[in-house]
Amino acid sequence: MKKKEKYLVSPNIKDKSLITELKGIDENGKKIKSKVINEKSLTIFLNNQEIVTLMSIADHPKYLAIGYLLNQNMLKKSDKISKVEIDKELNVVVVRTKRKTNYENKLKKKITTSGCAIGTVFGDIYDEIKKIKLKTKKKIKHKWIYEISKKITLTPSLYLEAGAIHGCAIIQNNKPLIYMEDVGRHNAVDKIAGYMFLKKISASNKIFYTTGRLTSEMVIKTIKMRIPILISRSGFTAWGVELAKKSDLTLIGRAKGKKYLVLSGEERIEYK
Amino acid sequence: MKKKEKYLVSPNIKDKSLITELKGIDENGKKIKSKVINEKSLTIFLNNQEIVTLMSIADHPKYLAIGYLLNQNMLKKSDKISKVEIDKELNVVVVRTKRKTNYENKLKKKITTSGCAIGTVFGDIYDEIKKIKLKTKKKIKHKWIYEISKKITLTPSLYLEAGAIHGCAIIQNNKPLIYMEDVGRHNAVDKIAGYMFLKKISASNKIFYTTGRLTSEMVIKTIKMRIPILISRSGFTAWGVELAKKSDLTLIGRAKGKKYLVLSGEERIEYK
Repeated sequence: MKKKEKYLVSPNIKDKSLITELKGIDENGKKIKSKVINEKSLTIFLNNQEIVTLMSIADHPKYLAIGYLLNQNMLKKSDKISKVEIDKELNVVVVRTKRKTNYENKLKKKITTSGCAIGTVFGDIYDEIKKIKLKTKKKIKHKWIYEISKKITLTPSLYLEAGAIHGCAIIQNNKPLIYMEDVGRHNAVDKIAGYMFLKKISASNKIFYTTGRLTSEMVIKTIKMRIPILISRSGFTAWGVELAKKSDLTLIGRAKGKKYLVLSGEERIEYK
Repeated sequence: MKKKEKYLVSPNIKDKSLITELKGIDENGKKIKSKVINEKSLTIFLNNQEIVTLMSIADHPKYLAIGYLLNQNMLKKSDKISKVEIDKELNVVVVRTKRKTNYENKLKKKITTSGCAIGTVFGDIYDEIKKIKLKTKKKIKHKWIYEISKKITLTPSLYLEAGAIHGCAIIQNNKPLIYMEDVGRHNAVDKIAGYMFLKKISASNKIFYTTGRLTSEMVIKTIKMRIPILISRSGFTAWGVELAKKSDLTLIGRAKGKKYLVLSGEERIEYK
């Protein structure tokens, strides 16, 4: 029997609030029941300011709110978080900091710079990540790439239960440590960022795995989190590769079965 | 030899501006070249107002801009479009209407109501679609579902060329008419909406096919476009199904090979 992977945190497939069973019919006209993921709206406040409402499975509102605010540069790594209040009925999370915050101007800027496909990346994030070079000498062994993909695929997940969900994981060498899922893949990334920040988990010796495509926004978030290696079972976009090259991020895509492609930072792969 | 499908419009896989060939290595450490999709930023203006900047493959900026504005209720079906200006160097599209427009208050509202996963749906759209009932008696034959999936999968596409892209199609009976692809699936929907509006193509007798998941936003756009049947090869979310049921939208998901599931509007399926 295979040893079950031990995660620090992973999807709770037994949580009945995450999945609904719906009635329908199949291709033979036969009545069936099908499990589907619940989307909920979740509104994030930073101190007294409403920041965003996003659609999420809402399994980790605290990590999601903190990770979102970190990845948008609204929460600084030096910030002291005095309180996180969660109202499950109103679907609201309030993050309170000792530092006084006001992002009215930043929120205004978003209107004219950010749309659906780039989600919630503000203009200043692009300026910031241009200056980041991931200098770590962290390597990834060829065989780890297979092992990581296999371990993650075999982990019990909401995807295996109900589909229509993206997954992200943080791996050390070939050992997955953190696994988060969400209807929006950027929520899954943000939940990981929030968890790593609160638990003080270092990033420079980790590997990031995502089921989603390697678009510019995914690459930006990985660079911002200072993780040097990003793996996906999906494909690349040209701008994602360009940004990865500029910041020395290793980009491994189309990692399926015994195949993968590396389009940036190939010096981190060890073939022997 | 199979007869090639004739589309009114479909992806131009020979357009070299859409795809870049990048150098990298494969799983054997061998040097390879891989085709990847180009993402570009595109800024949409309505008259003198900057509305949004989104990431797109930018193959049909005119249809994208008009479809986006229609789906956001910023362009009305009764509007006379006096001019569409496209600046390919600045990646800007300006849509000009006879009616004077000002959506400053609406753009402000977006700040606090919309996030990544719901992309660019404004609060007022939810209020609007709640009132829509898709009353058409349009049916879909069981075997068309297979035929549609097969025809779309076999159509030459940017997905087959380079991956990492979503596709959407408009079908009449079992015949695909319009096929659009984009890095963000909502751009593909918006391009279709813009095309159908400008070419005066009726919606109530059509079927919509998407490669993406049947999330609330996808369902909302289909209802808004008044298309009564939505098919996807991917899965459902609970809120997507709930919205579909309220508006009598037929929702067919996980349409792969000989399988599919119907979780809303099953009375439109004809099994004989």
